Amino acid sequence: MRIVDFIEAKRDGKVHSADDIHTFTLGFTRGEIPAYQASAWLMAVCIRGLSSGEMFALTDAMIESGCRLDLSSIPGMKLDKHSTGGVGDKVTLAVVPLLAAAGVPIAKLSGRGLGFTGGTIDKLESIPGFNSALSQSEIIHNVATVGACICSQTGDLTPADGKLYSLRDVTGTVESIPLIASSIMSKKIAAGADVILLDVKIGRAAFMKNRADGEALAEALLEIGERYDKKVSVTLTSMDAPLGRAVGNFLEAQEAVSLLKGENADPDFEEETLHFVSRGLSLTQKGGEVQAKHLIESGAGFKKFCEIIKVQGGNPEVFETPKIASHQKVVSAEKNGYVYDIDALAIGKTAMRLGAGREELDDKIDSLAGIIIHSGIGIKVKIGDPLAVLYTSKPSEIPDAETSIGISFTISDHRAETKSRILGERSVGF
Amino acid sequence: MRIVDFIEAKRDGKVHSADDIHTFTLGFTRGEIPAYQASAWLMAVCIRGLSSGEMFALTDAMIESGCRLDLSSIPGMKLDKHSTGGVGDKVTLAVVPLLAAAGVPIAKLSGRGLGFTGGTIDKLESIPGFNSALSQSEIIHNVATVGACICSQTGDLTPADGKLYSLRDVTGTVESIPLIASSIMSKKIAAGADVILLDVKIGRAAFMKNRADGEALAEALLEIGERYDKKVSVTLTSMDAPLGRAVGNFLEAQEAVSLLKGENADPDFEEETLHFVSRGLSLTQKGGEVQAKHLIESGAGFKKFCEIIKVQGGNPEVFETPKIASHQKVVSAEKNGYVYDIDALAIGKTAMRLGAGREELDDKIDSLAGIIIHSGIGIKVKIGDPLAVLYTSKPSEIPDAETSIGISFTISDHRAETKSRILGERSVGF
Repeated sequence: MRIVDFIEAKRDGKVHSADDIHTFTLGFTRGEIPAYQASAWLMAVCIRGLSSGEMFALTDAMIESGCRLDLSSIPGMKLDKHSTGGVGDKVTLAVVPLLAAAGVPIAKLSGRGLGFTGGTIDKLESIPGFNSALSQSEIIHNVATVGACICSQTGDLTPADGKLYSLRDVTGTVESIPLIASSIMSKKIAAGADVILLDVKIGRAAFMKNRADGEALAEALLEIGERYDKKVSVTLTSMDAPLGRAVGNFLEAQEAVSLLKGENADPDFEEETLHFVSRGLSLTQKGGEVQAKHLIESGAGFKKFCEIIKVQGGNPEVFETPKIASHQKVVSAEKNGYVYDIDALAIGKTAMRLGAGREELDDKIDSLAGIIIHSGIGIKVKIGDPLAVLYTSKPSEIPDAETSIGISFTISDHRAETKSRILGERSVGF
Repeated sequence: MRIVDFIEAKRDGKVHSADDIHTFTLGFTRGEIPAYQASAWLMAVCIRGLSSGEMFALTDAMIESGCRLDLSSIPGMKLDKHSTGGVGDKVTLAVVPLLAAAGVPIAKLSGRGLGFTGGTIDKLESIPGFNSALSQSEIIHNVATVGACICSQTGDLTPADGKLYSLRDVTGTVESIPLIASSIMSKKIAAGADVILLDVKIGRAAFMKNRADGEALAEALLEIGERYDKKVSVTLTSMDAPLGRAVGNFLEAQEAVSLLKGENADPDFEEETLHFVSRGLSLTQKGGEVQAKHLIESGAGFKKFCEIIKVQGGNPEVFETPKIASHQKVVSAEKNGYVYDIDALAIGKTAMRLGAGREELDDKIDSLAGIIIHSGIGIKVKIGDPLAVLYTSKPSEIPDAETSIGISFTISDHRAETKSRILGERSVGF
């Protein structure tokens, strides 16, 4: 295969053979095909698309490019969960211990946050001592003994995806449904899961800006799942407003702990958590919503959370007398009315500037920085009532943050209708 | 400007500002923007296109990236000619001395051949001693004294084009009308011409495969010419069959010399030559077709050819007792009938394999290798009559070449209609 012919074929909207996609993917991973050729091809893919067959071939090739996590020594159906990312999305922190408490084995490989979206690993690393870098044998040992682990993606799995993703990130070629779907699914399949819960977020603070794109991604994810004989459930959820009350790493971990302890949870956060736990229980034949609620009420989920954290070196006692950022600022309502909308994108970007996120991959995170939403959607406020509290160690960022958080709240004379954030669910393999 | 935003804008079909195109082009030329970002943008341009304004901005930026050849010390309207390339296209070798003989100053910067297309510089370098690498002051000196020079493109002019073209060549991003037009015109404008004759070839052995693409390129070239206040004439010519009888560097130089000497020229080659000379004379107000013919008949064109070659170190006497390749092979007709068609692409590729062209940029050329068409389109042949003669120093290539040349001739019971290769002409600036 001449690589220029391969690139030109996609430029002209043609369909590649599986062999050619393998040759390209593995050649690029080994460094034999230069980045400038790969990025031209990626751009052609972004504009021209990939057929299902091409997407399968790319997924296959990315899996083949590295090792696979072999969880076969652990009995039962292994589960994994993935969210396409948003603002305030700490659902994984609650779902993993709850399902593990019900005996569902989970080896959860997670990423770090970039831009306005948070990452599960950053949230967990806000717990002093927590170690996210586990070897394959540590992963298997932890899942076998504690029932679950949450750790960083290792370079051994799907290195082709890692290398392609880094290139896509700097060449304007992230937004492609078949590329996103094959990236997500290759990692999940290489990580050895039998059951995969996927959360495709839709809205202004999500990758997928509209329902049609979200449904197209869901379709692609399910297609790949079916081809690999996996049980896959895709839930479409809304990401227009932040999920729950906390945005920021330690603040979100605290909110997850509160939910696990059965303390006054945000109803949206609780609904999404129970949804994914119920789906996970039902797909592994261990129960449904009743059992999911019981795992919280009984304290089993919180107990499992502490076990998972401890075995990875973290100290869960940090939540008993939590630390707080050096500077706080209350943002107050400037008119009377109902909180009608909160712009998650503005909240996410502001939290990032307060120190909760990274603009560049190498930026340091301030784990205590972030925002607590005090008055959520539907709450009636009077002038001067607190809308949100900012937390940061960078007081110079506070004035701008205060302005943008003020703008991100829409206050109306009318109360917004209460709507579920769960927009739909589809599954294959059952 | 964030370069990723710039790439994404073109991916999504948006129009860039002139400033952004300048920033990109000059940043890439200086090495500040990596090739993998440039190639993603180039692919987006290939698929989404460029507006006229964007194409002008790119042309401007490429000119600005280097020096300009200052021909202002030479009186009169300076002329330049460019062909998009084909098989057997030695028109420049005849047109330049004929126009120079009429007093039209020409600083002709030419390229080398790649793939199945030949390059004017390679054809001239088949003349022993000929030096194509002239400095700017040598160019000006030669044009001032002899009236013309034909030399290699210097890296000082439009380095951005050189760098972008090299990247396009290996990333499947050559085929884009605005990129081709701005590449051609930036070089011609930087080289200081007032009058530009352009030959856009159309057909199976041309860049432009069909009339619609050829017309679109002509339109783009004229648009750029108009913007720079140049007199530009674009002629569309057919490149389905090889032009003239010879394909191969020294063989083509010999055919050009024969035409200049008034010896039994191929009618198509003569027609195209006279067309471009007439256009050049009329655009510089020095005559028309009658004068063009007279420049051949009087021997003035051949005399000027010898002067140009000599002043660049070449020995025109080589054409008196020409050298010949070590191996020759006659390809004969295998049926009776009329030569109905000759596939220029097959001829060009075969000539390349016989040694007349380069597969890769660094390949060496055998200047004596090539093909002479013995029986052109319209000629009646009997079984065993010679169709063409192969010339090479690589006898091992002969059997395959013989087969492919045999196939490249279509012999029919019907005589093909005689058609002019000149398909149309448009001009601006007059």
